[in-house]
Amino acid sequence: MRAVDLIRKKRDSGEHTPEEIGFLVSGYTKDDIPDYQMAAWLMAAWIRGLNRAELTALTEAMLHSGEVVSHADIPGKKVDKHSTGGVGDKTSLILAPIVAAGGLTVPMISGRGLGHTGGTLDKLEAIPGFNTALSLREFKRVLRECGMGLIGQTAEIAPADKKIYALRDVTSTVENVGLICASIMSKKLAEGIDALVLDVKTGSGAFMQKEEDAVQLAEVMVEIAQRMGKKAVALITDMEQPLGRMAGHSLEVIESIDVLRGNGPSDLRELSVELSAWMFYLGERTASVEEGRALADKMIATGQALEKFRQGIALQGGDPRVIDDTSLLPRARHREDIVSTKTGYILDTDCLQFGIALAMLGGGREKKEDSIDHGVGLEFHKRIGDRISAGEKLATIHYNAQEKLAEAREKIASSFAIGEAAPAPRPLIRRILGAS
Amino acid sequence: MRAVDLIRKKRDSGEHTPEEIGFLVSGYTKDDIPDYQMAAWLMAAWIRGLNRAELTALTEAMLHSGEVVSHADIPGKKVDKHSTGGVGDKTSLILAPIVAAGGLTVPMISGRGLGHTGGTLDKLEAIPGFNTALSLREFKRVLRECGMGLIGQTAEIAPADKKIYALRDVTSTVENVGLICASIMSKKLAEGIDALVLDVKTGSGAFMQKEEDAVQLAEVMVEIAQRMGKKAVALITDMEQPLGRMAGHSLEVIESIDVLRGNGPSDLRELSVELSAWMFYLGERTASVEEGRALADKMIATGQALEKFRQGIALQGGDPRVIDDTSLLPRARHREDIVSTKTGYILDTDCLQFGIALAMLGGGREKKEDSIDHGVGLEFHKRIGDRISAGEKLATIHYNAQEKLAEAREKIASSFAIGEAAPAPRPLIRRILGAS
Repeated sequence: MRAVDLIRKKRDSGEHTPEEIGFLVSGYTKDDIPDYQMAAWLMAAWIRGLNRAELTALTEAMLHSGEVVSHADIPGKKVDKHSTGGVGDKTSLILAPIVAAGGLTVPMISGRGLGHTGGTLDKLEAIPGFNTALSLREFKRVLRECGMGLIGQTAEIAPADKKIYALRDVTSTVENVGLICASIMSKKLAEGIDALVLDVKTGSGAFMQKEEDAVQLAEVMVEIAQRMGKKAVALITDMEQPLGRMAGHSLEVIESIDVLRGNGPSDLRELSVELSAWMFYLGERTASVEEGRALADKMIATGQALEKFRQGIALQGGDPRVIDDTSLLPRARHREDIVSTKTGYILDTDCLQFGIALAMLGGGREKKEDSIDHGVGLEFHKRIGDRISAGEKLATIHYNAQEKLAEAREKIASSFAIGEAAPAPRPLIRRILGAS
Repeated sequence: MRAVDLIRKKRDSGEHTPEEIGFLVSGYTKDDIPDYQMAAWLMAAWIRGLNRAELTALTEAMLHSGEVVSHADIPGKKVDKHSTGGVGDKTSLILAPIVAAGGLTVPMISGRGLGHTGGTLDKLEAIPGFNTALSLREFKRVLRECGMGLIGQTAEIAPADKKIYALRDVTSTVENVGLICASIMSKKLAEGIDALVLDVKTGSGAFMQKEEDAVQLAEVMVEIAQRMGKKAVALITDMEQPLGRMAGHSLEVIESIDVLRGNGPSDLRELSVELSAWMFYLGERTASVEEGRALADKMIATGQALEKFRQGIALQGGDPRVIDDTSLLPRARHREDIVSTKTGYILDTDCLQFGIALAMLGGGREKKEDSIDHGVGLEFHKRIGDRISAGEKLATIHYNAQEKLAEAREKIASSFAIGEAAPAPRPLIRRILGAS
């Protein structure tokens, strides 16, 4: 088999066998196939597309390019959730304790924020001492002890994905449903899970802004997971505005603790409970999603989820006192309110701009090497459909440096659309795919 | 400007500005743009296509990546011919002397054979001592002295083409009309010519087997040349069977001398005269193509063309006595006839297979580094439309080594289609494009 022939085949819209896909992935991982041939193939695949069988093969080949974790030594089902990312999306911090408290194991391997979206690892690192760089051995110990663990991708897991992703980034072959799916699923399925709940975001703050694109990605991911013998379901959820009221690392930890205390904003609580419910159901902890919801509510109401979070933080080296004293978290020194100049209803927000503004203030990174200011953040006082009067607060900026404040402020202020007629209510959970 | 944005633009079917094309070509030539980005762009361009304005810009950028030769110091018009290649295509050896004898300058920069096609440089090197690696300075001296010179591409001419072609070869982005056109034209237009006659082959022995593909390439090449201020015309000519009776280096030199003596096969003579006539006309030596034909015929009849060939050989270090004594050329030690097993008419030949058989015998190369046996060759006794009886000779193999003889023999024998009804006559010159 020769790479040049496989490039030609895809260029001419041919369909690859699993052996051909395996040859490309393993050859590239071992440096037998040079960057320029993989780049040509990726562009051909981007334009011509990969069908479901090819994507399954690609996902499997990437998955098996490194270590596939097994948690067979830990009793019970292992379940995880993956979100395609957005602004204020902190559900991992809430549902991992809920689901672990409810009796399943949640071996969560997460990413860092890039561009306008936040990353679970960065949020957890706002907690003093929290170590997201556990070895696989330490990770297993934590999982065995408390049922939840949250770490970053290790070099051993899906190295092909890491190498291919870096090449896609510099060859304009990122934005492709099939390639995105294979990248996500190869990492998630290497975690050693039995079931996966996918939260596919759509709207102005999501990667897939159009709902049909989100649905397409969700369908492909669910199908690939199922083809590979995993239970999977995808919730298409709204990211037309931030999730919850807080965006920014310390602020999101605080809001997550609020929800685990039974408080917090209703949208964040609703989605966290719903995702937990599906995890309980797919993990065969409950006989239905409805029972899953009741169990999640119970874990919050009894304080068991909050205690699980405290235990998980401590086991990963974090300061567990943050649960009761959030002043231990790094906070921004200054606050500035943004007030409305109009009276009316919030019709819409350009949620992407909020994420960009947060990154400008130091709460995000443009390049992987950038450091992050965990204290800065945005607090939203109004949501789509809310009534607002001129002079009333729309949002509060938590900042440290003046440098880009004016620009960020302007970006945020101009990203609320206000009009006279109340908009139609927006469902938070728009569709559920893969539920049989 | 960033390469990654230009890759995305072409991926999404966008149209590049000349500045963008220039940025890509000069950046790649200077190693500022890495192979993997150029590979991704080439694949996007291969699939999405390049329009005429983009191709003109690409050709110009590649042309100006190195030295653009000027022959302004040599009086009169400079004309050249380029053929897309085939089996037995030796017209350069005939028309260069005819046209130079007729008073124009022919600064011909040729290539080597690759795959099933022969190369002019290789054929000339069958002549003992002939040096195709003249410096540009020596080349000019030869041109000034006798009006014709035949050399190989130098490192100074169109280096971008050399680098891009090598990358295309390993990324399956070769077979594309636009990219082929830009590659050919950037080299040809760097020669410092005023006019170019293109011989675009079609049929079983051509790169463009289908006539519509040949016409498309011809149209694009003529348009690009004209956009760049050069006179150009393209003849679409038949390569469904070898041109002339001989294929192989020494044999083709012998056949070329035959034609220059006023003998030789009619198809080879007809095409050589026709191409010469167009060169005379585009080079403004004659007022019409008809007059050009008459002048070409005269150059042959008077022996002036043959003397010009003798002079050109001597000036490039070759032994001019080969003109009168072809036994000075390297010849194969053995001959083997292939006889027909059937009686009927030659309907067709699979001309590509003849080229492959010749290469197998040592008369071609698979890789650029391979050496060539100038003595081996194929002699064809019958042409399409000829009547043949069982037992009569179809072809004669001139060979040195037994090694692949049986395989080559079988390939040749099975590549003649013989049937009972005489086929329709095939016109040698199928279309002429670009003549105003």
